[in-house]
Amino acid sequence: MSRQTADHTDIRATNLAAVLGHLRRAAPCSRAAIATGTGLNKATVTSIVGELLERRLVRETQQTQNHVGRPATLLVLDGSAYATIGLEVSARGLTALACDTAGEQVLRWHRAGPGIDAGPAKTTAALAALARRAISTVESSGRQVLGIAVGVPGLVDRDGTVVRAAGLGWSDVPLRADLEKAVGRPGIPVTVDNDASLGVVAEQLYGPYAATPNLIQISGDTGVGAGVVVDGRRLMGHLGYVGEIGHLRLVPDGPACGCGRRGCLEALASLPAILERVDGAVEDDPQHQLDTLIRRAAAHDAAVTKVLGEAGTHLGHGIAALVNILNPEIVLLGGAYALLAEHLLPAVERALRDATIAPDAGGCSVAAGTFPHTATPLGAAAHALTPLTSGRLPAR
Amino acid sequence: MSRQTADHTDIRATNLAAVLGHLRRAAPCSRAAIATGTGLNKATVTSIVGELLERRLVRETQQTQNHVGRPATLLVLDGSAYATIGLEVSARGLTALACDTAGEQVLRWHRAGPGIDAGPAKTTAALAALARRAISTVESSGRQVLGIAVGVPGLVDRDGTVVRAAGLGWSDVPLRADLEKAVGRPGIPVTVDNDASLGVVAEQLYGPYAATPNLIQISGDTGVGAGVVVDGRRLMGHLGYVGEIGHLRLVPDGPACGCGRRGCLEALASLPAILERVDGAVEDDPQHQLDTLIRRAAAHDAAVTKVLGEAGTHLGHGIAALVNILNPEIVLLGGAYALLAEHLLPAVERALRDATIAPDAGGCSVAAGTFPHTATPLGAAAHALTPLTSGRLPAR
Repeated sequence: MSRQTADHTDIRATNLAAVLGHLRRAAPCSRAAIATGTGLNKATVTSIVGELLERRLVRETQQTQNHVGRPATLLVLDGSAYATIGLEVSARGLTALACDTAGEQVLRWHRAGPGIDAGPAKTTAALAALARRAISTVESSGRQVLGIAVGVPGLVDRDGTVVRAAGLGWSDVPLRADLEKAVGRPGIPVTVDNDASLGVVAEQLYGPYAATPNLIQISGDTGVGAGVVVDGRRLMGHLGYVGEIGHLRLVPDGPACGCGRRGCLEALASLPAILERVDGAVEDDPQHQLDTLIRRAAAHDAAVTKVLGEAGTHLGHGIAALVNILNPEIVLLGGAYALLAEHLLPAVERALRDATIAPDAGGCSVAAGTFPHTATPLGAAAHALTPLTSGRLPAR
Repeated sequence: MSRQTADHTDIRATNLAAVLGHLRRAAPCSRAAIATGTGLNKATVTSIVGELLERRLVRETQQTQNHVGRPATLLVLDGSAYATIGLEVSARGLTALACDTAGEQVLRWHRAGPGIDAGPAKTTAALAALARRAISTVESSGRQVLGIAVGVPGLVDRDGTVVRAAGLGWSDVPLRADLEKAVGRPGIPVTVDNDASLGVVAEQLYGPYAATPNLIQISGDTGVGAGVVVDGRRLMGHLGYVGEIGHLRLVPDGPACGCGRRGCLEALASLPAILERVDGAVEDDPQHQLDTLIRRAAAHDAAVTKVLGEAGTHLGHGIAALVNILNPEIVLLGGAYALLAEHLLPAVERALRDATIAPDAGGCSVAAGTFPHTATPLGAAAHALTPLTSGRLPAR
C-alpha cells in the first residue's frame, strides 16, 4: 500500500520534472508540443500544466504558433513567484546572485573581502549579512526564496561542513549549520558545496558547451579545483570530493603549499600564487590586484608574461592528469583563469599535448570559461532549484 | 507512427532487461516475486517469462517456496543455449574465457606468449586461433556464441582500433577488423576495449565490492591502467579513454617509458618494469618469471622486497591522483598486483595517505582484486552479453 502510494507520487514528480524540463529547453510551446516532446499523454500534460499555472511556475502567453488551424495558446516559465540564491566564497571576495524560476537574474552583487586570512567566523558573518540582504531584496520583489546554495573552495562533506579548504586555511568548519543559524530563516534550506563542482553546473546549463557530455571546468581563484561532467553526468564520488586537483604534486621540492606539502599545482598556479609571484604578496583586494595584472599582461609586461607562462605550463600539466584520467572533450578555464586565458592558453596547450598519452590529447580542447565572475554563484542558484526541477513543488 | 513503434519495442526491451536483471540477482524466484521486484504487472511478467522460456534463457525448477498456500514454480536463468567469449592480450600471455547466459564458466584457457615484442600481426593470429578454438568448444557444447569481446592494454577507440598500446609497442592497430577477418565468423560480433575498463566490470558484477558505487580497479600486467566506476556508473569519456594513468609523470627525468617520455608510472611500477628491475629483463614467459618473483617475495628476498617497496610507493602516488580526482571508496589492485598485494600494500597505503588532500584519503581503502588471472576476460565475456542484458534477444 505505502509502496504504491510512493510510486504514484514518484510518477507525478517525474512527469512534472519532464514538463518543466521541456519548457526550460523549448518554451514558448503548446500543451500539444509538450505532450509530443515528453511522450506524456495530453490529459496528463493538461493536469500538470494546470497545477503549474496555479502555482505561478508557468504562464500562458498571447503568442500563437504560425500554422494552419486553430491558434494554440503557448506556455512559458513564470519567474514571478519564486527565486533561489547562489553565494560564493573566494579569495576575490564574496558574490551573491539570485535567479527566478524562469532563469532570469534578480540580483547580482560582489563585495571585496573579507580576505583569505579573515578566518571562518568573520567570513561566515559577512556571508550571512550578504544572504540576508539578498533574501530581503528577493522578497521585496514579491518572490519566495526556495533555497540558498554556497560554493566554497575546498572539500565539503555531504552535511555541508568544510572539511578542508587549504587556500582559506579552514579545517572542519560547519558552514551550512553556522550559516543557517546566522541567516535565521529556518524555512529556507541552505546547502554548501565545492565551488568548482557548482561552477560546472553553470556551464552545463547555460554555456556554449552545454550539450557536451564530457566537460570539465577548472578554476583557481583561491585553491585549484575542477567540476567534472563525464558521459553526461556531474561526478560527485564517495564523499563528494571529486575534482580535487589542487594538490597533485607537480614539482618535487617545489614551493610550499597551504596544505603543508611542497610543489602542489595550487602552490604553483592558483591566482594567489600568481599574484604573489608578480607582486610579492596577495593584497587586501585581490580583485583590484587581478585587474592590474590583466592590464600589465595586455601591455606585454615582461615579468607578468613570464609568470603567466610558467603558471600556464603547470596548469597544463595538471589538466593533463585530468585528461589522462577522464578523457574530456573540453576543459574550460573558469574564474580568473578565464580573464587571463589568452595569456595562459599557449603554455597550457603545449604542456597538455606534451603530457597526455592519447594522440591530440584525446580530442580535448581548452578554452576560456563563459562566466569568469559568476560561474559558481550561477551554478549554485541553479543547484538550489534541484528539488523543483526534480518535480517537487514548493511547500505552500 | 514509427516513433510509437520504436517506443513499444523500447518498452518491451526495458521490461525484458528488468526481468533478466532481477533473475540474475534473485533467482530462484517466482513470477510473482519478479512482478513485485520489478514493479511490472503480472500479465507483463508472464508474457516476458514465456518468451524467455521459449528462447531457453530461463527455465522452471522443481523447487518450491517454503510458505503457506499453493507452491509456486520457481524460475532460474538457463545457460544451455547461449554463451559469450572474453579474451585478453597481456604481457602475461593470452587468456580465453567463455560464460553461458546463466553466468557459468564454460571454458577458461591461458597460453603463454606470444610475448610483448611479437608485434600486432603475430599476436592477432594467435588470438584468432584461440578464439576459433573457443568458438568450436562452445558450439560443441550445444551453445550459440553471441559475441566476443577483447581486452587490450592501451587506448582503444570506439571502432575497436588500438590507437596506442605503449606496453606492447602498438600504434593504430585495427584489431577488431583484423580479428573479425581472421576468425572468419561474420555472424559473431567482435568488440575491443581497454583491459582495465573491462576488468572493473568483473568486480562490479561478481566481486565482494559489487554494491560499491565508487570503485576503481587498477592493473599493471603490461601497461598501467584503471577501470573506473563513479556514482554507480562505469566511465567511458569522450573517446573511451578513461583511466589512462600509466603515463602520469611521477619522477621528472626518471626511467625511460615505452611512450617516449621519462618517469611515467608505467616505467616505474608496471609488472614488466618490476621484472626488469629484479631480473634485468622481461623473459619469454613473464608468468613464470612472476611466479618466481612471488616465491622470492614470500621468502623475504631483500632485493625483491626493495623493488616491490619502491614500486608500491610509485603506485600509491599514482593511485593518489585517482583518489584526488575521483574520490573512490575502494581501489582494487588487479592482475599481477593482486598476487603481489601483501608486498605492495604497505608502501601503497603510506604513499596514498601522504599524497591525498582529503583526510584519510577521502575514505578510500586499497585491497587485492578478486580475479588476478581472469578479471579482464571475465568482464569481457559479461560485456559481450550487453545486447541481451539490455533486453535485445538473440537473432534466430
